[in-house]
Amino acid sequence: MKLCRFDDYRIGIADGQDVYDVTEFVRAAVRIDILRPHYDLALLALPHLRKLSQADMRNFPRKPLGAVKLLSPILAPGKIIAAPTNYRAHVAEMDADTTLNSRRPPTDIETAGLFLKANTSLVGPSQGMERRFPARRTDYEVELVAVIGREGSRIDAAAALQFIAGYSIGLDMTTRGPEDRSFRKSSDSYSVLGPWMVTSDEISDPDSLQMSLHQNGVLKQQTSTADMVKDIAALVVYASSFFTLYPGDLLYTGTPSGVGPIEAGDTLRADIDGIGAMDILVRD
Amino acid sequence: MKLCRFDDYRIGIADGQDVYDVTEFVRAAVRIDILRPHYDLALLALPHLRKLSQADMRNFPRKPLGAVKLLSPILAPGKIIAAPTNYRAHVAEMDADTTLNSRRPPTDIETAGLFLKANTSLVGPSQGMERRFPARRTDYEVELVAVIGREGSRIDAAAALQFIAGYSIGLDMTTRGPEDRSFRKSSDSYSVLGPWMVTSDEISDPDSLQMSLHQNGVLKQQTSTADMVKDIAALVVYASSFFTLYPGDLLYTGTPSGVGPIEAGDTLRADIDGIGAMDILVRD
Repeated sequence: MKLCRFDDYRIGIADGQDVYDVTEFVRAAVRIDILRPHYDLALLALPHLRKLSQADMRNFPRKPLGAVKLLSPILAPGKIIAAPTNYRAHVAEMDADTTLNSRRPPTDIETAGLFLKANTSLVGPSQGMERRFPARRTDYEVELVAVIGREGSRIDAAAALQFIAGYSIGLDMTTRGPEDRSFRKSSDSYSVLGPWMVTSDEISDPDSLQMSLHQNGVLKQQTSTADMVKDIAALVVYASSFFTLYPGDLLYTGTPSGVGPIEAGDTLRADIDGIGAMDILVRD
Repeated sequence: MKLCRFDDYRIGIADGQDVYDVTEFVRAAVRIDILRPHYDLALLALPHLRKLSQADMRNFPRKPLGAVKLLSPILAPGKIIAAPTNYRAHVAEMDADTTLNSRRPPTDIETAGLFLKANTSLVGPSQGMERRFPARRTDYEVELVAVIGREGSRIDAAAALQFIAGYSIGLDMTTRGPEDRSFRKSSDSYSVLGPWMVTSDEISDPDSLQMSLHQNGVLKQQTSTADMVKDIAALVVYASSFFTLYPGDLLYTGTPSGVGPIEAGDTLRADIDGIGAMDILVRD
């Protein structure tokens, strides 16, 4: 199932070339309590949405995918976690280019740890991305993103994949420079997520997906997620060794080699097998 | 006005030795929309709460402060922003102690940037704090915390204080080590906030508040917020130059000198003039 958000934050299921609007169904299924902290409310409806049959689907309002604006499939996550150096070829390119790396060499992920991005940096493909500092170098980084579906802490490797509700494509946009990573990578629109979340039952092996990024039609990044230093399960284990994961938490799993600067007017096309593709327009 | 959360996430106004339970009033005042991302819903009710008179207050259920469990006054903020090196005496002690600082010297805040802490690390004083890695050094850091009350981006210094809804006392708990700051400082319970948020109209000058931390009754940190490298307005300007601030966003403004390790069983008492005091119990 492809869960998405579209237009004025409506909740949809993408199917073929259409989006079914399940907003009212979710409203009825999820009880809101003003007292508790809520992250993405749509995710709470997942068990109900999964029970819908093809016949049920025909009862929902439907729009062509081409006629809607796709937003981030997850809103207001508990946290956005990201892996800094999770593909060896990217670590090598960062080590080689001192302009990318004015303070210190990137280290192995076990030493470097993971890092956070601001929830408020999250946008969907239809919103595009805006360079915050046009005079500074800003790079694209395409990544597979795992969406946490269950609360868990100190999770075992054997159980780790059960904590994932689904997968999306992410762009971890980055202003290069000396400031703390969590600051430089958290400007508004610097975490792109889309085009939807594919539920994990439809991704048989998240650790062997082909992933690519084209900039203005030119292939810039291409890898298999099999090349990750820490695979998805290991990242869930590592993240949950430091803090509890909650439904809606996002795990950006790292970018392969081929990162490079963007300019206003660029179109970035990000593609992951089994999830889909999305185009993001860059502006200043 | 002292806005707080207590017991089972109920919303309260602390007054003298009592807490008034305004939960049902807030429920009636704030319209919840399942479609939009929500951060702290209680904060949305602030304009309504401010209109309550002393006579109105007598109509709310009331409990003695000593009989309630105080939680973080803000739940599920958009982001928790923190200043790494904002008191010169703390920078000096970090520079001097290589065990605090295994990778590189802390730098001036303009170069170091700000950093993020996970929303899911937030707790109130009654919840105490749990060391995630008892074998690793974990430090207390007391800080003045500004709670953002209005959306703003690229805010001017002259207007900056108008974007603050109120102030709380924060503890930025820290596992020392090589990993990314935003990871090491984001374990569950590593961002303590309390005992309430004092609305900004009651803090005439946030840049000259006396602040202290006692560990087991021994004074460890003591400063005036006048010693900050970047004052509150400058921090709001700096943060909002990188990203949009939203109501409920928390700004931890940095810790003075005197940081040190904690052990299970410790009691930390944090105190800021004009806000109040809180005791936090450390456990493993």
